[in-house]
Amino acid sequence: MPKKTYNHLAGQKISRIEALSDGLFAIAMTLLILGIAVPSAKGIATEKEVGQLLLTLAPKFLTYLLGFITLGIFWVGHSTQFKFIHRTDRHLTWLSIFFWMFVSVIPFSTGFLSEFIRFKLAVGLYWLNIVLVGVTLYLHWNYAVQRKLVDSAHDITTIDAAMKQRIRTAQAMYAMAAALCFINTYLSVALMILIQLNYAFAFFFNAESDEAEDA
Amino acid sequence: MPKKTYNHLAGQKISRIEALSDGLFAIAMTLLILGIAVPSAKGIATEKEVGQLLLTLAPKFLTYLLGFITLGIFWVGHSTQFKFIHRTDRHLTWLSIFFWMFVSVIPFSTGFLSEFIRFKLAVGLYWLNIVLVGVTLYLHWNYAVQRKLVDSAHDITTIDAAMKQRIRTAQAMYAMAAALCFINTYLSVALMILIQLNYAFAFFFNAESDEAEDA
Amino acid sequence: MPKKTYNHLAGQKISRIEALSDGLFAIAMTLLILGIAVPSAKGIATEKEVGQLLLTLAPKFLTYLLGFITLGIFWVGHSTQFKFIHRTDRHLTWLSIFFWMFVSVIPFSTGFLSEFIRFKLAVGLYWLNIVLVGVTLYLHWNYAVQRKLVDSAHDITTIDAAMKQRIRTAQAMYAMAAALCFINTYLSVALMILIQLNYAFAFFFNAESDEAEDA
Amino acid sequence: MPKKTYNHLAGQKISRIEALSDGLFAIAMTLLILGIAVPSAKGIATEKEVGQLLLTLAPKFLTYLLGFITLGIFWVGHSTQFKFIHRTDRHLTWLSIFFWMFVSVIPFSTGFLSEFIRFKLAVGLYWLNIVLVGVTLYLHWNYAVQRKLVDSAHDITTIDAAMKQRIRTAQAMYAMAAALCFINTYLSVALMILIQLNYAFAFFFNAESDEAEDA
Repeated sequence: MPKKTYNHLAGQKISRIEALSDGLFAIAMTLLILGIAVPSAKGIATEKEVGQLLLTLAPKFLTYLLGFITLGIFWVGHSTQFKFIHRTDRHLTWLSIFFWMFVSVIPFSTGFLSEFIRFKLAVGLYWLNIVLVGVTLYLHWNYAVQRKLVDSAHDITTIDAAMKQRIRTAQAMYAMAAALCFINTYLSVALMILIQLNYAFAFFFNAESDEAEDA
Repeated sequence: MPKKTYNHLAGQKISRIEALSDGLFAIAMTLLILGIAVPSAKGIATEKEVGQLLLTLAPKFLTYLLGFITLGIFWVGHSTQFKFIHRTDRHLTWLSIFFWMFVSVIPFSTGFLSEFIRFKLAVGLYWLNIVLVGVTLYLHWNYAVQRKLVDSAHDITTIDAAMKQRIRTAQAMYAMAAALCFINTYLSVALMILIQLNYAFAFFFNAESDEAEDA
Repeated sequence: MPKKTYNHLAGQKISRIEALSDGLFAIAMTLLILGIAVPSAKGIATEKEVGQLLLTLAPKFLTYLLGFITLGIFWVGHSTQFKFIHRTDRHLTWLSIFFWMFVSVIPFSTGFLSEFIRFKLAVGLYWLNIVLVGVTLYLHWNYAVQRKLVDSAHDITTIDAAMKQRIRTAQAMYAMAAALCFINTYLSVALMILIQLNYAFAFFFNAESDEAEDA
Repeated sequence: MPKKTYNHLAGQKISRIEALSDGLFAIAMTLLILGIAVPSAKGIATEKEVGQLLLTLAPKFLTYLLGFITLGIFWVGHSTQFKFIHRTDRHLTWLSIFFWMFVSVIPFSTGFLSEFIRFKLAVGLYWLNIVLVGVTLYLHWNYAVQRKLVDSAHDITTIDAAMKQRIRTAQAMYAMAAALCFINTYLSVALMILIQLNYAFAFFFNAESDEAEDA
């Protein structure tokens, strides 16, 4: 049956999935800055006015920071899996495509959150986006392990536990942060921001102890 | 004759065609989200109004989904060929360039379809786009096989049949779906959507039987 | 002297220049479609009106076709050089950067030409763009050969002659086409288009004779 | 502790960091041209008027040139480090992500400078951006050397000195140029431009002496 045969042919080379992923994240990261338009200098006469103008842009830079870190976290998450996955099939490829599909929505849901930050639905939409990205990332890894697409030279049991625990913990924290929106949406967003920063900046605090372990 | 010599020089390294292809698909996928502008929060006072606003965006998210899946299908189609093509020449390179040229139009024709969905011509334009992508993909594979640019270690006869059958079947289904526009354009689009989803989601239904075969 | 040392360090790995080049061309190609906005369906009531709307977009699709082919020609030109260049230094890297700088202007100068096609200056600007791209491409190759950065396993003398002849011939034809603008700008643009198409489509006419030679 | 384990897993393959970097710089470079919109031909009747229109675009082309060269300088700076770094860990990956985060702001701060060139704050913002990029680049290299992620086959002591001296000298010059804004902002920008051009064009003057040394 030719169609089944095609499906068996259609598992990508690992390098192609990695290349598309790197390109897609690079673009999503770079497009974030397009969300901050250069304001017009018309009617601006003093340094003080320029300073005030820059202050009004501050929330947009915060959004930019968070968008970038979020994309960074998921890029690291997806590419870390490919340190252990050593072959793919058609289904794993499509799980990656769906993962990218939800990742590419992050700039939109971040922008929507920044515009509608007073509303629970905006927090909910952002959270839904993070959940969908997390779930596809989890399914992607789980499928690879189940179908033995990972390199058996590694201690897969330990790695599998660490990978899954990581996603579960992060998602549980996001869910709690999102639930806070029923008390106050700003509180909810603030906690999500802290969770993100923790993933990116943790190393500043852990660097020393890691060094000891690596050595 | 120098010009002829240049043409013989100008066959690209496989890796370069793969890299440009991955970059181009990554960008086309990422640009799709730019089609969904973040609406303004002005004049929005209640959660219910935010909800209604999100509902009005629903068709755009459907278009996004379909655009992404379409690009995913053709990325898989083109890159699967390069699992077997092991060298290129200038002509194959240019067939790839024309393939990319039609692929890059997909965001436009998808957007046009979403705006003019009541009109047969919009369905026709979208279908024409899919046909041109499919035809260049077919010619690309056919040329590679004819000129023996594929790796002879593989059972090329079987693979060739599967590859061509796949494109022919898909194009026949698209043509039928497009023809339905003479009855009703919405019916036509709905069928196209089902065909797309089938290609992307088929694995959820086939996964088990595939597993058996792979094992 | 540290600065000199840095300059010696700063020659890139070939793979990095290739990757940046592939990414840049992929983006420039994909951005071309953004030049064609999806028109609004407001006030459009009949298939005939949709058809007329599509006809008004026809020149934009012609511009798209030409922009894509132009980028294709220069991508092939630059990457063909890297079939023979096997190491780089800082200067070659910067010649590539300047080449990319002029390549990235092509979408602008193409758009300007399409908007101001009645004016000699628009033809002149487009031609200037093509000249700058061609000149940096020529200098890039020439520098690589002079500094022996090409793989000596190849017959460099023959390849060098073919590479240079190719660029010289193309530039001479473009100069002639551009000069025609003093008679008629449309005539000038039409000839440029024919020259471009010749480079992309030549293979349809030459394919058979090439096949004989390859065999 | 699974989280710690994940952090140890999450150091990327070098090739992935290089690929994301090349993609990100390619996009940032290509997006610069979007800052120059094609003007409308409406109301333009003579060649002289087209010429005047082009003259009004001249400052934007200068900004384009500078943005491109700045990105070129930092792409060369970051990728040169990876000629010597032969493995990474999670922290180095995140230092790259922060480096890219500041790099992606360059199109904005360049545009802001071009719009508000009369104001000290615009010069200060641009300078701050260059400082942040330079600092993360410095920390990135320093961390790699400290953690012995560089290939010990090289004479790291000499390379380390050259790398750091390079960044320190450049930053000292930028700081001086920025400080000039208290006298005159145009003077300040002019000097920054000269510093940039020096880095890109130096080779035209040094080429001969380099050749002697390389030989």
